[in-house]
Amino acid sequence: MVRVNSNYSKLQGSYLFSTIGKKVGEYTAAHPEKKVIRLGIGDVTRPLPGAVIAALHKAVGEMGEEETFRGYAPDLGYEFLRNAICENDYRARGCDISPDEIFVSDGAKSDSGNIQEIFSLDNTIAVCDPVYPVYVDSNVMAGRTGDFDAASGAYCDVIYMPCGRENDFIPKIPERKADIIYLCYPNNPTGAVIGKEELQKWVDHANAKGSVIIYDAAYEAYISTPGIPHSIYECKGAKTCAIELHSFSKNAGFTGLRLGYTVIPKELERDGISLHSLWARRHGTKYNGAPYIVQRAGEAVYSPEGKKEIRELVSYYMKNAAYILDGLQKAGYEVSGGVDAPYIWLRVPDGMTSWDFFDHLLENAGVVGTPGSGFGAHGEGYFRLTAFGSHENTVEAVDRITSM
Amino acid sequence: MVRVNSNYSKLQGSYLFSTIGKKVGEYTAAHPEKKVIRLGIGDVTRPLPGAVIAALHKAVGEMGEEETFRGYAPDLGYEFLRNAICENDYRARGCDISPDEIFVSDGAKSDSGNIQEIFSLDNTIAVCDPVYPVYVDSNVMAGRTGDFDAASGAYCDVIYMPCGRENDFIPKIPERKADIIYLCYPNNPTGAVIGKEELQKWVDHANAKGSVIIYDAAYEAYISTPGIPHSIYECKGAKTCAIELHSFSKNAGFTGLRLGYTVIPKELERDGISLHSLWARRHGTKYNGAPYIVQRAGEAVYSPEGKKEIRELVSYYMKNAAYILDGLQKAGYEVSGGVDAPYIWLRVPDGMTSWDFFDHLLENAGVVGTPGSGFGAHGEGYFRLTAFGSHENTVEAVDRITSM
Repeated sequence: MVRVNSNYSKLQGSYLFSTIGKKVGEYTAAHPEKKVIRLGIGDVTRPLPGAVIAALHKAVGEMGEEETFRGYAPDLGYEFLRNAICENDYRARGCDISPDEIFVSDGAKSDSGNIQEIFSLDNTIAVCDPVYPVYVDSNVMAGRTGDFDAASGAYCDVIYMPCGRENDFIPKIPERKADIIYLCYPNNPTGAVIGKEELQKWVDHANAKGSVIIYDAAYEAYISTPGIPHSIYECKGAKTCAIELHSFSKNAGFTGLRLGYTVIPKELERDGISLHSLWARRHGTKYNGAPYIVQRAGEAVYSPEGKKEIRELVSYYMKNAAYILDGLQKAGYEVSGGVDAPYIWLRVPDGMTSWDFFDHLLENAGVVGTPGSGFGAHGEGYFRLTAFGSHENTVEAVDRITSM
Repeated sequence: MVRVNSNYSKLQGSYLFSTIGKKVGEYTAAHPEKKVIRLGIGDVTRPLPGAVIAALHKAVGEMGEEETFRGYAPDLGYEFLRNAICENDYRARGCDISPDEIFVSDGAKSDSGNIQEIFSLDNTIAVCDPVYPVYVDSNVMAGRTGDFDAASGAYCDVIYMPCGRENDFIPKIPERKADIIYLCYPNNPTGAVIGKEELQKWVDHANAKGSVIIYDAAYEAYISTPGIPHSIYECKGAKTCAIELHSFSKNAGFTGLRLGYTVIPKELERDGISLHSLWARRHGTKYNGAPYIVQRAGEAVYSPEGKKEIRELVSYYMKNAAYILDGLQKAGYEVSGGVDAPYIWLRVPDGMTSWDFFDHLLENAGVVGTPGSGFGAHGEGYFRLTAFGSHENTVEAVDRITSM
């Protein structure tokens, strides 16, 4: 008789956004006349840039002709894309990363869920709290954690690093030994960023202890403040302790197109084994590459026209962020994030839980956000709004919230 | 200090096709004047059908307009595609499968590598020998097998089911208890097919023992002989013991476009837990859906024009298969497969190993095939040729082989 993976039974409820979807569905069914504005899930709303669309049409054309048709892609991604990534996201920033240290994939969600596979099950993970749920859940499913403890709202054998206003949403380096440390900056969900000096401390710590940092840089395109690192490889020594995840979803609007990449420097070794070789093996055995046409779309993001359009796209969303930030501040809310990140993190009014505020906002303003407690116990009392809506909807949402 | 996943160190050498690529690279470097014909890796060569290209262009256009842009896809796939799959691949064949039992993915390779995650590590797997390497390697990496035993060319704690001419390449039901049974028909690499009565025995066995069959139907479009099942769900009782994997790569030429699907019936339970719910959770947590434009391409495969073009595509490759089969038979080779499958499986001449014959063919005919031993110990003495080349190249390859 087959036994199922019993680790799945440790998982709590369904995925956060499924629950939100259900609540919103019930509300709209009950109030079909009301227009609901969704600033919950971090999905983009602007169409793909012209340079990307042109590249897609061209690549589709190639796939229809015998001479230019392409079958299986190279395991780790086409060179044209890996070269463009290397040149623009690393060398231009003074980071010594080479194209063959870049693994192209179908997105940072897959990579952030799958990367734990190359590590032993007896490692201890450390995560920020609040946190993007995939880091924790993928480790729970693999069996790298204990059971969920309802009293503390946490899984046993996971090191949670509280992030709140008391520490500007930058965690303290944990005292307990953490083998795999997940960091995400600009942060989802808090919208906080980390300075280079502070990040350097984590790199030094990881190198001293033999830990590995999984650095999720999915939102780096939203950084405008000078001096804030776009990549962990801007820190000295990061190549011997850090893996970096990137996404095309949030800078170029690829949430529905699916493209991302992971960087594993060749000198990153543990137990005398190259993590690069393990991930290459994982990719080669269990994955067959991102679609050729989508990799061409990714390449177009780095063209002069593409870059210009991406900047406009990011500006568009950051104008939303500024409007939300300003409006809520004036209305007396305590808000953070939203300057170098597309997320605004606000304190819910005293006496309310995050889910209370979710219901309150949906009922009274018809606005959907994300309850902070969905991201972890220390997210309780907070609420996330995203800047990814249309500008018109964002303005209307803020007006509705502030006049509640 | 982080420990790496030590199961990876059990894996044997690099992936089969990497080794072939290396050998061919060395040969072409040494003989730049010679034209090498590749009938090794099972990659298609014909361009995408017109209906698919048109659907791609249309969907790309939608992604460029605000009104029709699409962000994150539904976790399990768009309804338009799941409905088309259900109607054409199941209901039209009398199989009682519903759209919400179909999970759209980026291909059968990913699914066949990932599906093992929902099972406990203490299950024993059974595989045909020879076998598509991903089934075994993904279980090795997860820790579901013992070490590799060089003497027998097999991993400990894996049940290998020999498939040779003595049993028409259909394995005997194993006497040892097998929890997870991988079957692939039409078979890769042998090109063999399984009749409905024979397949029914496996279904009955799995139901009696509580095993689960992972049925890889990636090549079902190549079946032309009446009475050969296209889906395991044509067998009675399969919905309580079988998961089925499908690909768009081999019927519609999607190797570079990436699309596939997995069927898990809702009534398939083990330990009182629905495997459908486990896979849904896996998909929702570690995957973000196939690209919208690629799902529209998949939908076009089921349009009247798409169906006609797919039939022509399959016919084109099967004309190659027939030419290879006929030519090699006349030249005295012992061959099988190639009738309801795009693979031809031939016995190598006495006194040669599979890799000897690989080198022999490359040196003397400039033709690349795949050594049978790359698929398992019982593949030794055999050799795989694919029908996926251009017709001109296939004819030339056969002429070169037969005049060696």
